[in-house]
Amino acid sequence: MKPGPNRLAVTGIGNAMLDIISQDTREVYRDLGLVKAAMSLISEDQLATFYNAMGTTMQMSGGSVANSIAGVAALGGTCGYIGKVADDDFGRIFTHDLQSMGVELDLAIALAGEGATGRCHVFITNDAQRTMATYLGASNQLRVSDVHETLIARSEITYVEGYLFDLAPAKEAIRKVVNFAHVHDSMVALSLSDMFCVDRHRRDFLDLVTTDVDVLLANETEIRSLFQVDSLEAAFANLEELGLLAVVTRGPLGADVLTVSGVVTVPALEVEHAIDQNGAGDLFASGFLYGLALGADPVESAELGSLCAGEIISHLGARPENDLELLAIEAGLL
Amino acid sequence: MKPGPNRLAVTGIGNAMLDIISQDTREVYRDLGLVKAAMSLISEDQLATFYNAMGTTMQMSGGSVANSIAGVAALGGTCGYIGKVADDDFGRIFTHDLQSMGVELDLAIALAGEGATGRCHVFITNDAQRTMATYLGASNQLRVSDVHETLIARSEITYVEGYLFDLAPAKEAIRKVVNFAHVHDSMVALSLSDMFCVDRHRRDFLDLVTTDVDVLLANETEIRSLFQVDSLEAAFANLEELGLLAVVTRGPLGADVLTVSGVVTVPALEVEHAIDQNGAGDLFASGFLYGLALGADPVESAELGSLCAGEIISHLGARPENDLELLAIEAGLL
Repeated sequence: MKPGPNRLAVTGIGNAMLDIISQDTREVYRDLGLVKAAMSLISEDQLATFYNAMGTTMQMSGGSVANSIAGVAALGGTCGYIGKVADDDFGRIFTHDLQSMGVELDLAIALAGEGATGRCHVFITNDAQRTMATYLGASNQLRVSDVHETLIARSEITYVEGYLFDLAPAKEAIRKVVNFAHVHDSMVALSLSDMFCVDRHRRDFLDLVTTDVDVLLANETEIRSLFQVDSLEAAFANLEELGLLAVVTRGPLGADVLTVSGVVTVPALEVEHAIDQNGAGDLFASGFLYGLALGADPVESAELGSLCAGEIISHLGARPENDLELLAIEAGLL
Repeated sequence: MKPGPNRLAVTGIGNAMLDIISQDTREVYRDLGLVKAAMSLISEDQLATFYNAMGTTMQMSGGSVANSIAGVAALGGTCGYIGKVADDDFGRIFTHDLQSMGVELDLAIALAGEGATGRCHVFITNDAQRTMATYLGASNQLRVSDVHETLIARSEITYVEGYLFDLAPAKEAIRKVVNFAHVHDSMVALSLSDMFCVDRHRRDFLDLVTTDVDVLLANETEIRSLFQVDSLEAAFANLEELGLLAVVTRGPLGADVLTVSGVVTVPALEVEHAIDQNGAGDLFASGFLYGLALGADPVESAELGSLCAGEIISHLGARPENDLELLAIEAGLL
């Protein structure tokens, strides 16, 4: 059932980013010391080195949770987004792209000296993997005072990006978001974002997951990193103790949903030509969270997630190119 | 035969642009009053209206002659580019993308108040046609004093963009370019760019073609517009009188090359899935001009042009994604 008038299915809060994407046929990501298929943070000093090492680039809006929100909008859902950009070309593209999809925005604008709009350099290798070097820029300046109640108060689900923990004032900002969500009966969903991000902030993640999170989204390496265990089974054992709704995406192996009656695997959509894995997890989250917001059960919601993930890996960039709502209706999922 | 040491195969001069591309499934280009498959100029006042009407966009370097030069570089050719950008994100992308391909740049930077980097809003409809709304911005501020001799003096071919005539001080700038080319025995090639552009500046185009141009590149509507004739045959009759080397691209019908022994049609490459016609003419020019610069005959050069055009229409954006040199070697054309 769709959320009522003036209600939002999902509001996301995360790092507002422009993706700068190039095909990395020469695998220059190695020379740059990047870890394949992971996200590394780079400083402003390193920007020129990384950008200059790339070939011709394509620029598209990105940011993990922003991608997820764009996916919810493409599914026909009402949604909101909270983040921070600078007053520059990249910030205007980011704003335009969410606005053009009908997303309600609460974007803070960085002051002079707070850096340029964040950018993620994405190296796509021939195996469709994406290796990322992120300059947080203005997104890193998201302050507690930039977080407002308005969108969260109207949302069925509030979706928090794990990458936020890389921001200096993260704990307070996330605390504020979570408090608003609790006050307004908005479910709190958290993405673990990246295995190294989990590694950098394990204690904070565990605290949040234990006390405040209703829905946890992660991939296999992230969830193993969170509990520092070798197997997915051990990770699920830990999750069961926490009594969470959790979903672990496993690429072509599908997604494992932890329900009250145990783990259910939802298969991945078969994609003939995977071009770019960039955004697969983000778009899985779109379908999964939108399904939950509509009141679907977790397994049905994961099926909607798989459909969205399948669309995004069939082309370059992490924002949907096709009418996801139509695809979902055709597949009997909406 | 490749140009000697320190020589350039082709130097281009044109409007430096970033393409802002969106799939226009709802055909909003109609509501904006744009002429399908043509380029319309828009003013700074109209920018917001046109951009806001677009859905999620992809940003890539563009500019007709800049695309051609990127194609020459992707074929392994040495080349140069003369143009003007602003000191902004879009200008930096444009610069980066040509630099990353090894193109030698003589880019003027606009002063404060001379506008932002030029941008072309590209509406791709389901039939793969591209309809364009261009804000010239900084590129429109290219002044005679921004044109230097250095790159032209080293070039086998100097390639002039017809769109330059839309710039206020165009005549003097083009005059200067052509004079430099004549002094240094660089062949002058001209693209007619667009039928409406030809219509706006027919007298100037005819003067230049009659007195200064060695190689003319056009599509069917442009060449008919130049001579104000209804048929391609009549256009060729006019061209023969001028004694030019000319090539007329005709999309899937291939390219007609006017040689001393008459018109020869070179077939278009068969492309299974045409995604975006954007850049087809620009990339045809890459192969055609690079062939001529290597001393190939016009028909062989047109075959190289067809190969490049075929690559570009198989994906979004007007810059090559594949190694054109390798494709050309495999096809026995290099």
